[in-house]
This record gives sequence, structure tokens and C-alpha cells, in this order.
Amino acid sequence: MPVYQAPVRDMQFLIHEVLKLQQYSDLPGYEDATPDVIDAILEESARFHEEVIAPLNRIGDLQGCTRHEDGSVTTPDGFKEAYQQFCEYGFGTIAMDPDYGGQGLPAVMALAIAEMTSSANQGFGMYPGLSAGAWRAIHATASEEQKRTYLPKMTEGKWTGTMNLTEPQCGTDLGLIRSKAVEQADGSYKISGQKIWISSGEHDLAENIIHLVLARIEGAVEGIKGISLFIVPKFLVNEDGSLGKRNPVTCGGLEEKMGIHGNATCVINLDEATGYLVGQPNKGMRAMFVMMNEARLGVGLQGYSSAEVAYQNALAFAKERLQSRSISGVKFPDLPADPIIVHPDVRRMLLDTKAFVEGARALTYWASLQEDLSHKAADEKVREKAGDYMALLTPIIKAYQTHKGYQGCNDALQVLGGSGYCEEWGMSQFVRDARISMIYEGTNGIQALDLVGRKLMQNGGRAWQSFFAEIDQFCVDNESVDGLGGHIDGLKAVKAMLVEATQWLGMNGMANPDNAGAGSHDYLHLFGITTQAYMWAMMVKEALPKAGDSDPFYRNKIKTGQYFLDRILPDADAHLAKLKSGADSMMALEVDDF
Amino acid sequence: MPVYQAPVRDMQFLIHEVLKLQQYSDLPGYEDATPDVIDAILEESARFHEEVIAPLNRIGDLQGCTRHEDGSVTTPDGFKEAYQQFCEYGFGTIAMDPDYGGQGLPAVMALAIAEMTSSANQGFGMYPGLSAGAWRAIHATASEEQKRTYLPKMTEGKWTGTMNLTEPQCGTDLGLIRSKAVEQADGSYKISGQKIWISSGEHDLAENIIHLVLARIEGAVEGIKGISLFIVPKFLVNEDGSLGKRNPVTCGGLEEKMGIHGNATCVINLDEATGYLVGQPNKGMRAMFVMMNEARLGVGLQGYSSAEVAYQNALAFAKERLQSRSISGVKFPDLPADPIIVHPDVRRMLLDTKAFVEGARALTYWASLQEDLSHKAADEKVREKAGDYMALLTPIIKAYQTHKGYQGCNDALQVLGGSGYCEEWGMSQFVRDARISMIYEGTNGIQALDLVGRKLMQNGGRAWQSFFAEIDQFCVDNESVDGLGGHIDGLKAVKAMLVEATQWLGMNGMANPDNAGAGSHDYLHLFGITTQAYMWAMMVKEALPKAGDSDPFYRNKIKTGQYFLDRILPDADAHLAKLKSGADSMMALEVDDF
Repeated sequence: MPVYQAPVRDMQFLIHEVLKLQQYSDLPGYEDATPDVIDAILEESARFHEEVIAPLNRIGDLQGCTRHEDGSVTTPDGFKEAYQQFCEYGFGTIAMDPDYGGQGLPAVMALAIAEMTSSANQGFGMYPGLSAGAWRAIHATASEEQKRTYLPKMTEGKWTGTMNLTEPQCGTDLGLIRSKAVEQADGSYKISGQKIWISSGEHDLAENIIHLVLARIEGAVEGIKGISLFIVPKFLVNEDGSLGKRNPVTCGGLEEKMGIHGNATCVINLDEATGYLVGQPNKGMRAMFVMMNEARLGVGLQGYSSAEVAYQNALAFAKERLQSRSISGVKFPDLPADPIIVHPDVRRMLLDTKAFVEGARALTYWASLQEDLSHKAADEKVREKAGDYMALLTPIIKAYQTHKGYQGCNDALQVLGGSGYCEEWGMSQFVRDARISMIYEGTNGIQALDLVGRKLMQNGGRAWQSFFAEIDQFCVDNESVDGLGGHIDGLKAVKAMLVEATQWLGMNGMANPDNAGAGSHDYLHLFGITTQAYMWAMMVKEALPKAGDSDPFYRNKIKTGQYFLDRILPDADAHLAKLKSGADSMMALEVDDF
Repeated sequence: MPVYQAPVRDMQFLIHEVLKLQQYSDLPGYEDATPDVIDAILEESARFHEEVIAPLNRIGDLQGCTRHEDGSVTTPDGFKEAYQQFCEYGFGTIAMDPDYGGQGLPAVMALAIAEMTSSANQGFGMYPGLSAGAWRAIHATASEEQKRTYLPKMTEGKWTGTMNLTEPQCGTDLGLIRSKAVEQADGSYKISGQKIWISSGEHDLAENIIHLVLARIEGAVEGIKGISLFIVPKFLVNEDGSLGKRNPVTCGGLEEKMGIHGNATCVINLDEATGYLVGQPNKGMRAMFVMMNEARLGVGLQGYSSAEVAYQNALAFAKERLQSRSISGVKFPDLPADPIIVHPDVRRMLLDTKAFVEGARALTYWASLQEDLSHKAADEKVREKAGDYMALLTPIIKAYQTHKGYQGCNDALQVLGGSGYCEEWGMSQFVRDARISMIYEGTNGIQALDLVGRKLMQNGGRAWQSFFAEIDQFCVDNESVDGLGGHIDGLKAVKAMLVEATQWLGMNGMANPDNAGAGSHDYLHLFGITTQAYMWAMMVKEALPKAGDSDPFYRNKIKTGQYFLDRILPDADAHLAKLKSGADSMMALEVDDF
């Protein structure tokens, strides 16, 4: 049975020492988030996720969800009770708006808890996770009346939410949506169509499910400019807030998937289901983007969360499994062989993952601070800059971290060798579950295109210019910090490559957009490595003065930072070289000649 | 339902035009392998694998194998009939020794067919695959009487073979084997112990199963110097060759695995089973290495074979799936959207895989020619050099190709997006099946250690010196070939890096063996890229004069070669940089501080 231990110490280091959350007490909600409160929440959440959620992970994989003849869906044994406890603790409400029942605490606290849920049980975590996404879309775009009707129950977790986007003929290209909405005399709509791959689309955890559905109002123009967003509740809500009649929005089937078996991935059939327009007609995509941007941050979090738990289990194995002797001499002469953690190549797999996970956690938490600043800061300039960073970094966090996180899970499986390939050890599940994160909420290829085709250009490149300037300033400010030189040099070098790549895209992407497309993946990864280099420099800077502490945490952080410089940073050059080769060889083959 | 089309054209190109097999007609068996014969075999095999073996792939995944209460094992529906046909066609006997019923044809022909079997159905292919490994071990190390008793039936496929190495406490480190052999009055042994992860260990395809078992003769020294090899038949063989009594070597259970469900991975219990010593007592490891070296070539072949079939299915999807418009302008205005193969990033995933697969196929076939030369060439110098190459390249072929092949399967899955994650499309199976190849027959980490710790050193570095000299000579000979300049430059550059890395290892691996271990993975990958660069240069050289041919094959080969230079070769630098960072940051963390 795989284990999970929430990395509370690393979370505390980031929140208290790197982000220095206490310095933001002027932000609404932050004044309540004293270090003591934060630590208490983290520790309570850690205990709950280790003891209640993690043990359900393998059950979820083995049992999966069951659809019954009436279209109802049962989640795996224990999920319902665990979800109820999850709600009672209020783990889903941490950063939600107090006006609708939330706790209004810093976003980073919500992320730290979401990380624990995702590491402990990705399939389970998607129920509150998707619900939070729907919550945010409603919060950002619905009318006050709609918010009052749906949000408080969703905050409590009594109702959950979903996002119904994909149809059989359209995944990425939502302009091809066919689901149809017909306006009724009372202002509501009758919605018909079929949606697929709807995560948490039907289940037995909550009393009601609030589906957010993209559909085309009869007569709307073709393409994405004719798409509107609707609230389609499983049970209609009476004026007094009680549940009314069952809406014909039903689960037509469950997908058999590679992983995340604990989550119900549904075909959703809408059969003249009653829906309520959210926001303006034909502006559905804009609402979806609001929600998707933050949901993508959550998927980037899944990327490293999977790698974290897979790493923990690989580490435990590597300390226990005795096999062969160290090539630099016997290390444990009393044992029949040395534990495999003495072997450099086993350490390589562990440290690649450890260094990535810690850097990714830092970036994700840092981004969530930007998220709060973008909404809550008093100074408009601060809000703008933070909003720019969020927009710029979201595709990087989503794609880079799910890509590397999946690699981390695979490295962790590899540490176990043949045991890793046998299901009973649980490593296969981590790999199979993690694989989806590279796909959903916009494939990683779409993230790369979003970065080079949209985010770089927005506001004349204001976001990347400001981010690059921040890195430059950091380097200037810390150039003479003792022991940080390697990190400053590494950060400067990789940032220079990123500048070169950005300029190359500017010159060549205009001349031929295929150059931008052909370089998008490598550009995103080069950017990802640069953000990691920045985070590692920040973390090591905080750790250096405490290197002599009795707690080895700081020394280990410095050592892991050195590993990042030696073993991950060098990947940057290849990305730049590939990008600069342009689109020619990528587009040379005719379609029929592949 | 996934499809498979054997890449006969590419195989012919390699065999006839790149390897120029007809030039080796002085080798035994090669005189019969005229181009016509080769083409006929390839085409017959292609038809059989496409029509009979490939359709059983998904059935194998869904049904898996079933162990019954008496320990017998049933393979998935259709496997038994297909295996019978496979044997009737003689597809398993192509390169086997005619003295024992084989066809004695060139090894490359056996590999081409094994590639088809592996692409079409990896789980199925492991039954004849493992059997061929056992065949080779017996052929290389057993007595003439043993060979006469077992090989002819194994050649026919009426009997199959296995390799019983692993035990619960020992995988990589076979010195820890506990299975015990006690000599009997008649010279046979009684063998007791438990073996795990025995592929094809029990099944209903053959009349008898010849287990090769590593065990320790009572009183033998500890460690690998006390390990002997035994033949342990499922049914003892009477003097007249008929089957005698059931030997107590039984399947105690089947593993639940991430993939290759169609293959029975068995716990094998030996309960005073009768076994016959193969070769000298305590020399079992040497016999196992003979077999493993060639088996590792077969696993390297699986690596690219998985990627080949996954690529084919991703390609078919990419040509059909309509989603979004090309960023460089609408390509198919009559369709509601362009097929996704117009998008550069989709092409990136396809071409990364295509370029890898074609390079890996070339290297694998080239190595199999070396295998034949090492056994069959008249000139001892030729035999020696070819043997050196085989020894040197085997770990590279095994580890580099399974690593990249798994990436290729993942890229192929990614092309399908959400469909790739749903089991019904079959891409998940390709990924799950391919994952094992990085682990079995020696994990990829062990291959890397074999390369830097053993193969580089053997005979004072004779193998790599001779291989590097061959590359230098190729560059000199072809420097002025019109259109080949990019490949010559690329090959020279990457080979120079490999020389630098080799020297670095020589200097620093002696001083501290952990430096060799820490760099082993990156060294192997740098070597892998170098071999690919050599193969691509060879292939493009052959294709260039035919670029004007009406068959677009040659032009496409040249274009794919350019893609290799632009998009795969640049990975070399990072491997060199990582290697040269040495062991310090990898070994810095104390075991308890991870």
C-alpha cells in the first residue's frame, strides 16, 4: 500500500520564509492568516489527507465508479464518507469569498490543501477540484441572484459543480460546439446536446450538481463567437432554495480510462434540459477562460503533486531494497547488499524529481500570491502586474509541470524496477493517473500555443517585459550574496537564452506563424526552466543564512538547489537550439508522406 | 480498434540499400537470402501479423491470462490458434541453426519479423521471444546431447522456453539467489525455490516448457560465483523424446501488471523439481550473459516497435481529426476545421517519434548484421570487431531505444488528446505495454552501468576506439557528398562530444567510481544520439541519389533526416554538460535527508 506524508515543512518554508506571507497583512483575508493559523490548518489538513484520503486511492483505482441503469453513479467505497468529512473540515472553502460562505483566506492556503488532496488521491480530488472551478466561473460571471442561489451550497460542498465543454466533434476547438439552447417564455433555455469527458459529471457525493454548459443559442453565429454559458442544475432549485424536479441532464455512460478511475468521467446527455444564461449571450468563451485560467493552475499543481507522492514511495523503496554494492565501496557491510539509494543512478531519478517538485511547488505558490494580488491589492499597478504574471505563467505552470511531473512519476516507477510495473505497489497508478494532466484543461500543446500566440503579445509584451525586468533586478540585488553566485549565474544565463528565444519568435513568428507553432513547445519548456531557476535562486537565498541551523532542512535545500543547477538547468540549451531551427523541417513532409 | 501496417518498405530500404545484405553472400545462410526471398518473407509476415496477430492485441489486454486452480494457465482467446499458425509459417525459426531445425537465414530477417510481432502484439510476441532467448542459451552453452534433446522441438515451437532468474529478494543482484540444487545419484539435480516475474512461465500454447533456472548447488560459494544454470522441463523428456512425468515446477500465481496482460508473468515454484546442469557448475552467470546480451537486443527492438505502432495510430488520427485552423492560414476550406496534422506541434510529436523509430530500426538491423558477422565471418578480425560492436552497442540499443520508444508512445497518445486517455482507442495499451521494456532484461540504469563500468573498459577500450574510428572514416569518405554536409557536420560534432565524455569518464571515473555511475545515464544517451546520427547519415547518403525518384520514399527519408538534425541531435549538449557536473551534487544528500 503506497504511503503519503504531506510535505508540511516545505510548505511552511515557502509560505513563511520565501513568500513571507505575513508581509501582506494589508490584503483582505491575510490579516487572519497568521503563521499560527497557517500552521494549524496545514497540520490538520496533513493528518486528514494522510489518514483518510490517501488510503482510498488504491480502492478508487481498483473499484472505479459504477453507473446504474437509471443513470445514477456510485463512487468507490469510502469516497462519500470521506467527502463529507472533507466538507465538514471546510477544506474546500479556504480561499472562497466570505460573501458566499467562504473563509476568504489566502489562495496559497487553498493550493497547499489542494496539493495534499491531489497527492493523496487525484481521482477523489477532482470532485472538489472541478466544483471549485465551476464556483469561480459563477463567481466571476454570473448575476448576483445566480450567485446567491448557487454559491453558498457549492461553498459548503452540499452541491458540486462541473464544466461541460467537450463534444464528440470538438475538444480543443470549441467553436464546433453543436449543443443547442432555445429561449423559453420565462427567460430560461431548453438545452439539448451531448457532452463527453465530463469529469465528476455524475456521482453520489452531493445533493445536487450544478453543470456549467457551453451551448449555442438558436440562431447564433457559427464559431466561438456564438457560444453561450449556461447553468444547468441536476435538480432545479425552488425559490426557497429547496430542490425541485430532476432536470433531464443525465449520465449516458462512463469512460474506461487509463487512470483516475475514482473519478466519474461521464457522457452527459442534455435532453431539453432547463438552463439559465450566465452573463451575456454569445460571450460564453470569455466566462470559460476566466475559469480555465485558474483551473489550469490547479492542473499544474496536479503535475507536481503526483510526482511528490510517487517520489515519496520510490524513496521509501530505495532506502529498504537491498541490491548490489555501491560502486565506490561497500556502504552497509552488515547487510547482504546495500540499499539501492547508494547507487548514483537511483539518486539521479530521485533527485531529478525532488528538485523539480520543490521548484514547481515554489512557482505554483508564488503564482497563487500573484493571483491574490491581482484581485485584492489596493494599488492598481500591483494588481495589473500580478494579473500579467498570472496570465503569462499559467500555461507554463500547466504544461511544464504536468510534463515534468509525469516524468517524475515514471522515474519513481523505474526506481522500483519490476515491482513498479506490478499494480500492487501502486506506482503504476501514479503514472496512469498523472498521464491525464498533460491532456485536460487544454492539452500541453495548446498551452504552448496560448503562450507564444497570445500571452507573449498581450499589451505589447508588457507581461514578459515586466517578468524579465524582475529577474534582472533580483540578479542585481543578490549578485554579491555569498554562496548564491552559481544560482545568479545560472539564472542570468537561462534568462539570456529566453530573451534570445523571445526575440527569435518576435522576428520569425511574424514572418511565418508556423515558426511560432514549431517553437512553442521548446519555448514553453525554456520558460519553465527559467522560472524554476528563479524560484531556486529565491529559495537558496533564504536557506543560505540558515545553513548552520540544527534543522538540516536548509542545508538540504541548498544541496538540492545545486543539483538543479547541475542536472536540470542544462536542458535549456537544447530547447533554444530546437526553437531556432524553425518550422522548415517540421512542415516539410506532405500529409500523405508521413 | 488500433491498426498496424508492417513498415515493409523501410525494412527493404535498410536491408537491401543501407546494409546491402547481398554483399555478404559469402556468409553461411546469406547465399539463400536473395532479395526476392527476403521480400517474399517480409510480405508474408506482414500479412500474417496485420491480419492475425494485431487483432488479438486488445483482446490480450482486456482478457489477460487466467490461472486455474491446478496451476495451469490459459492465454487470451485466439492466442493458441495464432501461435500455432505462427509456428507453421516458421516465423520463429528464421535465423536458428539448421543443425537443430532452423532456417539459418540472416539474423536481420529474424529481427524484422520479431519487430512485426512486437509491434502487432507485444504480449503475444513475448512467448516466442522468451523461447528464442532460452534457445540461444542452450545452443551456446549446453551439451550436444542436451541440444539434441531440447532444441529441435523448441525450434518448431512445439516446446517453448523461459528464463528463471529473479527471486523476491533479488532482481538485479543475482548473487543473492537462494534457489537450491541438490545433486542426485544419476547426475541430475533436485531444485527447490521460488522465482518471480517469469514471463511466459506457464501457458497453453505449447506441449512442454523448458525452464532455464539459475540456482545454487548445495555447498557452493556465496555470491554470483556460486550460481549454476539448469534445464528444468515442465514435463520430463523420455529417452525416445516423448513426454514423461510432470515435473514439480509450477505456476503459483500471476502478477497484475500495468500492461502486457496477454503475457503470463508467473510466480514459479520449484519443489524438488528435476533439473539438468547446463555447462560447468558455478558458471551459470556466464551462460546467462550469453543469452541476455542477445535478449537485450530484442528488448531494444521492442522499444521502437511499440513506438512504431503507436505512431501509426496517432498518424491516422491526426489525418482524420478536424480541429481548429492552421495558424498559417486555412488549409482545408471545405471542411469545418483542418485536420490536426497541419498544426506544427502535432507534427513535432509525430516526427520526434518517426525520426527516432527509423534511426532505431537502422541501428538494430545494423547491429544484427554485426551479430552474424561475429559468429559467421571467415576472417577472425572481422568476427572480433563485430563482436566488439555488439557488446558495446547492446546496452545502448536496449536502454536508449526503450526510453525513447516509451516517449514515442506517450507522444502518440498525446496526439489523440482525451481519446488517447480512453482505453477504447488503444493508445493507453501501447503506453502501458511499452513501459516494461525500460525495466526487464536489466533496468535501463543497469544498462548504463554495464556500458560505462564494463563495456568501455573491455580489452583496453578496443570496442569504442574501433567504433569511433569507423565514424571518423565515414566522415572522411563522405565529406564531399553533395547534400550530406549537415549530417557529416552533425555527426562530427556529436562524436566529438562523445569523445570528450569518454575522456572525462576515463579521468574522473577512476578517481571516484561514483562519477562514472552519476554520468552513466547521460553517457548512454549521448552515445545513443551519436549512433542515431551515424545511422541517419548512412541512410540519407543512400537516399540522396534517389531523391528524384518517382517513389517519394527517398525524399521523405531525407526530410526526416533533416528533422533528426534539427530536433533530436541538439539533446546531446545537455547530456555532456550533466555528465561533466560529476557526482558531487548527486551524492551530497545523506540518505536520511532526502
